[in-house]
Amino acid sequence: MEEKVIKIGLLGLGTVGCGVYKILEENKESIQQRAGIRLEVKKVLVRSLDKKRGVELPEAMLTTSLADIIEDPEIKIVVEVLGGVNPTLDYVLAALNQGKSVVTANKDMVAEYGEQLFAAAQRNQCDLLFEASVAGGIPIIRTLKQSLAGNQIEEVFGIINGTTNYMLTKMTQEGSPFAEVLSEAQAKGYAESDPTADVGGFDAARKIAILASIAFNTRIPLSQVYTEGITKITVDDIAYASELGYMIKLLGIAKARSEGVEVRVHPTFIPKDHPLAAVGDVFNAVFVRGNAVGDTMFYGKGAGELPTASAVVADIMDAARDIVRNVPGIIGCTCFEKKPVLDIGETFSKYYIRLKVADKPGVLASIALVFGNKEVSLKSVLQKATDNTAELVLITHRVQEQNVQDALMDIKQLSSVLEIANMIRVEGEE
Amino acid sequence: MEEKVIKIGLLGLGTVGCGVYKILEENKESIQQRAGIRLEVKKVLVRSLDKKRGVELPEAMLTTSLADIIEDPEIKIVVEVLGGVNPTLDYVLAALNQGKSVVTANKDMVAEYGEQLFAAAQRNQCDLLFEASVAGGIPIIRTLKQSLAGNQIEEVFGIINGTTNYMLTKMTQEGSPFAEVLSEAQAKGYAESDPTADVGGFDAARKIAILASIAFNTRIPLSQVYTEGITKITVDDIAYASELGYMIKLLGIAKARSEGVEVRVHPTFIPKDHPLAAVGDVFNAVFVRGNAVGDTMFYGKGAGELPTASAVVADIMDAARDIVRNVPGIIGCTCFEKKPVLDIGETFSKYYIRLKVADKPGVLASIALVFGNKEVSLKSVLQKATDNTAELVLITHRVQEQNVQDALMDIKQLSSVLEIANMIRVEGEE
Repeated sequence: MEEKVIKIGLLGLGTVGCGVYKILEENKESIQQRAGIRLEVKKVLVRSLDKKRGVELPEAMLTTSLADIIEDPEIKIVVEVLGGVNPTLDYVLAALNQGKSVVTANKDMVAEYGEQLFAAAQRNQCDLLFEASVAGGIPIIRTLKQSLAGNQIEEVFGIINGTTNYMLTKMTQEGSPFAEVLSEAQAKGYAESDPTADVGGFDAARKIAILASIAFNTRIPLSQVYTEGITKITVDDIAYASELGYMIKLLGIAKARSEGVEVRVHPTFIPKDHPLAAVGDVFNAVFVRGNAVGDTMFYGKGAGELPTASAVVADIMDAARDIVRNVPGIIGCTCFEKKPVLDIGETFSKYYIRLKVADKPGVLASIALVFGNKEVSLKSVLQKATDNTAELVLITHRVQEQNVQDALMDIKQLSSVLEIANMIRVEGEE
Repeated sequence: MEEKVIKIGLLGLGTVGCGVYKILEENKESIQQRAGIRLEVKKVLVRSLDKKRGVELPEAMLTTSLADIIEDPEIKIVVEVLGGVNPTLDYVLAALNQGKSVVTANKDMVAEYGEQLFAAAQRNQCDLLFEASVAGGIPIIRTLKQSLAGNQIEEVFGIINGTTNYMLTKMTQEGSPFAEVLSEAQAKGYAESDPTADVGGFDAARKIAILASIAFNTRIPLSQVYTEGITKITVDDIAYASELGYMIKLLGIAKARSEGVEVRVHPTFIPKDHPLAAVGDVFNAVFVRGNAVGDTMFYGKGAGELPTASAVVADIMDAARDIVRNVPGIIGCTCFEKKPVLDIGETFSKYYIRLKVADKPGVLASIALVFGNKEVSLKSVLQKATDNTAELVLITHRVQEQNVQDALMDIKQLSSVLEIANMIRVEGEE
């Protein structure tokens, strides 16, 4: 085999950047033999030349000038691991406009500026690959785009934020409250000092927007993803979930319906025997239902230096192969449809509802009456007395969310109802 | 987009063939939009023209002559879903030699004649894709070849035979014996009237040979895959497994070691909290450990009309894209190494050993002495009296198999040992 070499420019040398460099070095031989191409990092864009790095590399490789990379005709692939949107988006667009194929791990940029980015990639006939942007090492993007391409995808849902999965796992195993587990996650480096993106569900929202766009061939605007975090989940909710046969997980959920698509992020009850229930700690897993393949699940580490870099390197190998064979862009954007994203009120689910009520006769009857009036039928009811009040835990049958919301508005007005303590959606069972 | 059409010849119209035809029809539009290519079945090779089919298609499409397909220059992709090796191998080689790309679901043929097939594909610059040959709808081949290509794969192991997984799940859940569950599986159509290929582990052996060849870049001859089925698994073994915190699964296992590769199929104890333990019924799952990505798992239906056809159609789409872009063979065979397959005696594992012994003092000491002499250290011992005899259940630490085999030879000679009832390997824990 004749020796082919493809040179790479790396934008950024943080955690993932170091991981990419390490893998390209450590697995150099097997990568070269598998791809039939030698991959060489030529330049690395950094903010400062003399910062301490997590990886040793020749000093001459570092630059603070973007032009050194995107104007170098020898560099064919630009790998973006800077993160953020500003100035990253401009950098990536500049690289594409110079005819470079781009590999990115940047969910924020892909979720918010996908349309602009893919248009630029197509115009310049470049690959724009982004496997690492969702669920780290789990190869879910390529799976949806290629391996399940013969299917009409009916549902994609999964655990796509490791931080919150770690926290919910701890809360479940140890019965510790949210605040305590958050501090622990921060101490371990799993959660940021400002944990909003994770615990507020915003990180997961970007990822499910990307997955849903691919699965349903329609671009999902991030602003239309209903997003609810885990901050309101209490130890009580977790205990009730367990008693009723469920686990609580923060899920990104996307479903195709004839009227449009449902795309949402929220804490969710799933049955204990569902494959996702066994996914603990910082692991991620994505469940996909296709009309041919049926139920599938893909499990692995959703973050971290090497798992994320594993996905980046796979994309680099694909991009390199496409360049050598002169077919960059062979698998491009597939958002060729325009499907409406349904409002949360239009979605369907089962619901867990926990109410604090006065402990006296007739309360359940009055509440059940309101639900009945709004056509919300109840599957199970659990009542527990605590001091002078009682806790009422209801699970509904599958109903439209607007009806539940309307019922809860009315229930709030009942004098015997002290508090609507929580409402959590239930998924993963017929 | 200009309309591109690729015509397909189908060899066989059994279960999977019908599934492929159905998916290409039912998902026609989304397939065309995603691939940018219209896929049309032009001819279907059948044994008899007037047999009743599971799918309706124009009579003129059927032929009993291979030449009608492989000599038709309009047909660019040949899809082989006949099964078997004779005459299928000749048909596929003929198709490749005519320059057709081939998609096959045939694990027997790929496992036994892979070298010859991939050489023909490369010589003729054709795609030879075989995603459906292992684990049906689970996209494990493409995952190993592309998505995890940046990794050095350390281990691949999984549940890759649905029939035996169904049987072991039933035996575990209901405590029913092997023979009873086999009849039930046969009645449900999950097991053949001659169940040897499944319950003897031979089906799984073919699949792990294929997976290991890809994972480790070295061709694994089927004859070197140690193969043991589930026929000796009793209700007692399953009960002991449960008591000790394990499940019994038939696993295909492949591990890379510096001295060579381990490739084996046998019933295996895995911890109840291992992700594979939750994989029940006819589902398959493959666990992969890479040096960058860490632990990953891929779960889905391993057989059946539509799941298998889902994988076939994905391959057809890839092959079609490669033909349109003039790059067939872009991802070819990657068996560029020659690694020895280690003998079963050279492999390492933990072992569950169940002995029937005389119920008298000193027996355990004499057995422990033999193990000690062979450097087999014991992790746990369970002793249960039954009538005049006792059952001794041992779990060893991680040791070389030859030492265990030697110890068992000596133990068999002890007068107090009535029977070595079973020996089952333990995997999936440190």
